[in-house]
Amino acid sequence: MRLLLIGFGNLGRGLARSILEGGKFKDLKVVGIVDERGGVLNDEGIELRQALEVAESEGSVAKMGIEGLSAVEAIRESDADLVVELTPTNIKTGEPGLTHIRTALETGKHVVTSNKGPLVIAFRELQKLASSKGVQFKYSATVGGAIPVISLARRLASGDEILGVRGVLNGTTNYILTRMEREGLSQDVVIREAQELGIAEKDPTLDIEGIDTACKLVILANSILDMDVKLSDVKITGISRISPEALKLAREAGYTIKLIGNADKKGLDVRPRLVPLDHPLNIGGTLNAVSFRLRYAREITISGFGAGPAETSSALLADIMEVLASSPAS
Amino acid sequence: MRLLLIGFGNLGRGLARSILEGGKFKDLKVVGIVDERGGVLNDEGIELRQALEVAESEGSVAKMGIEGLSAVEAIRESDADLVVELTPTNIKTGEPGLTHIRTALETGKHVVTSNKGPLVIAFRELQKLASSKGVQFKYSATVGGAIPVISLARRLASGDEILGVRGVLNGTTNYILTRMEREGLSQDVVIREAQELGIAEKDPTLDIEGIDTACKLVILANSILDMDVKLSDVKITGISRISPEALKLAREAGYTIKLIGNADKKGLDVRPRLVPLDHPLNIGGTLNAVSFRLRYAREITISGFGAGPAETSSALLADIMEVLASSPAS
Repeated sequence: MRLLLIGFGNLGRGLARSILEGGKFKDLKVVGIVDERGGVLNDEGIELRQALEVAESEGSVAKMGIEGLSAVEAIRESDADLVVELTPTNIKTGEPGLTHIRTALETGKHVVTSNKGPLVIAFRELQKLASSKGVQFKYSATVGGAIPVISLARRLASGDEILGVRGVLNGTTNYILTRMEREGLSQDVVIREAQELGIAEKDPTLDIEGIDTACKLVILANSILDMDVKLSDVKITGISRISPEALKLAREAGYTIKLIGNADKKGLDVRPRLVPLDHPLNIGGTLNAVSFRLRYAREITISGFGAGPAETSSALLADIMEVLASSPAS
Repeated sequence: MRLLLIGFGNLGRGLARSILEGGKFKDLKVVGIVDERGGVLNDEGIELRQALEVAESEGSVAKMGIEGLSAVEAIRESDADLVVELTPTNIKTGEPGLTHIRTALETGKHVVTSNKGPLVIAFRELQKLASSKGVQFKYSATVGGAIPVISLARRLASGDEILGVRGVLNGTTNYILTRMEREGLSQDVVIREAQELGIAEKDPTLDIEGIDTACKLVILANSILDMDVKLSDVKITGISRISPEALKLAREAGYTIKLIGNADKKGLDVRPRLVPLDHPLNIGGTLNAVSFRLRYAREITISGFGAGPAETSSALLADIMEVLASSPAS
């Protein structure tokens, strides 16, 4: 199967390295790579080792191909079967990922993405477009990193009924709450340390205020609960008012405090909630966890590392292999 | 798809009730039911409501069919596409389930089972037989109840590499340890209470001594890690020497004690281990949890209720629906 990678930062490069290792990924051929400065196309397959070297040393693959080549041009011109969209998330406009994904689907290409923006802005539109073109649109990596939340939900829904979904969907805030609880430190101190470690961004507002959690909740609700909701439908409270004292009191009573996104037919909200210490949603550090409320099985929870290039690569590759498994050889 | 149910106790009746509700299970037709005393066969489909009533009032469906009909006869004579084997587990001989499953596979029928015995005794043989006959053999319900451990493992293995698997695989011992920890009670007292509640069996040895956990670990190792191991390959230590004092000391240090089955290329063992309070394997009550160690994603853990008719029914139905989805209509 022929792949076109849009975006060649940490994620794209991690993916390229996994594909290079061969083995079970030997049927994947990368026929195009585009980054912010340009790109390279080759129907015979791109020499990935060279692309990685050029990208590391020059900061772009444009040097081995065409300076200024745009992703949209590349998507239109390439004979790729599948576009892997890995540009950064923009939750206000969904761009540039939204245009990339639209173009790919319109030209009959499967899409696998890690970009939350287009899904938060235009989930139904993209899903309908994919369906009308008879191609697949997969986005496991947008929620829970390496945790196969969406495919697990499909399996659960086949023999049971999913009544609701809730979870710890943001690794940064979970890391902050975990450190505050374990060491009694103030939120400011922990955030500064998390920024130094690269766990929190320079402007951590989207995480701290619960916006990132809400975006993932919207994706879960639309894809798993078959709802049609937008970010503005989520009632959001972040963690900024949680103190180490509150965590200490909770713990003495057998609880911890987690930032939980919750969705069911009654509505969507994100807010700090008490969680019993031995409940599966009490997970430490940068872990994420998603809990399904089910008619027969009551509750099934899955947890794992929600971010990081290797973890996200694992989710992207599983999506890519699913597309490969259900497509005729090409 | 035509189903033949072997075993009509709590599990079989729960399954029949789910199928009766129709909806997404409307393509399932039960053409035979056999219990210990006899059975009923009807190619046109059995009236499930009546079968449930007769089984409840008479203790057997034989009254509405043939007294003394054996499961093996029924499997040979029925034109069912799929045999659902739900007889009790015998880990020494695997019987009578082993003969039922062999007969079903040999006569070209798919098999879905909740019976651990045949899998512990003859995993490779049954897998090869199914493969040579071109039929499917599914056993999700044998490990982790409603938790779709096996199908999750398949998905994870497609984009990653599973290095090892470990878990809390026995709800009874987990309930006992949870109660001992929360209330400082002795193991004897908690076991007696668990027996009264129906959570522990009259003879709880298989649970307490870790044998049940070891059986499930063998199934996981053979199916997920592609090993070829038997119960005698597992080094087993149960929970009988764990005291409330040990649990208290562990908790003061930020840990709990869980009975953990662990399998990787180095070997298999079952023993009590310290687990950090905020680790995903710290789950309370009768919950089960399974943790995969992965090359890229590091660790993914899934938890849920490991036993109970409704939970197991959910796993059986998901397996049945998978067989249906991949079979030509019939």
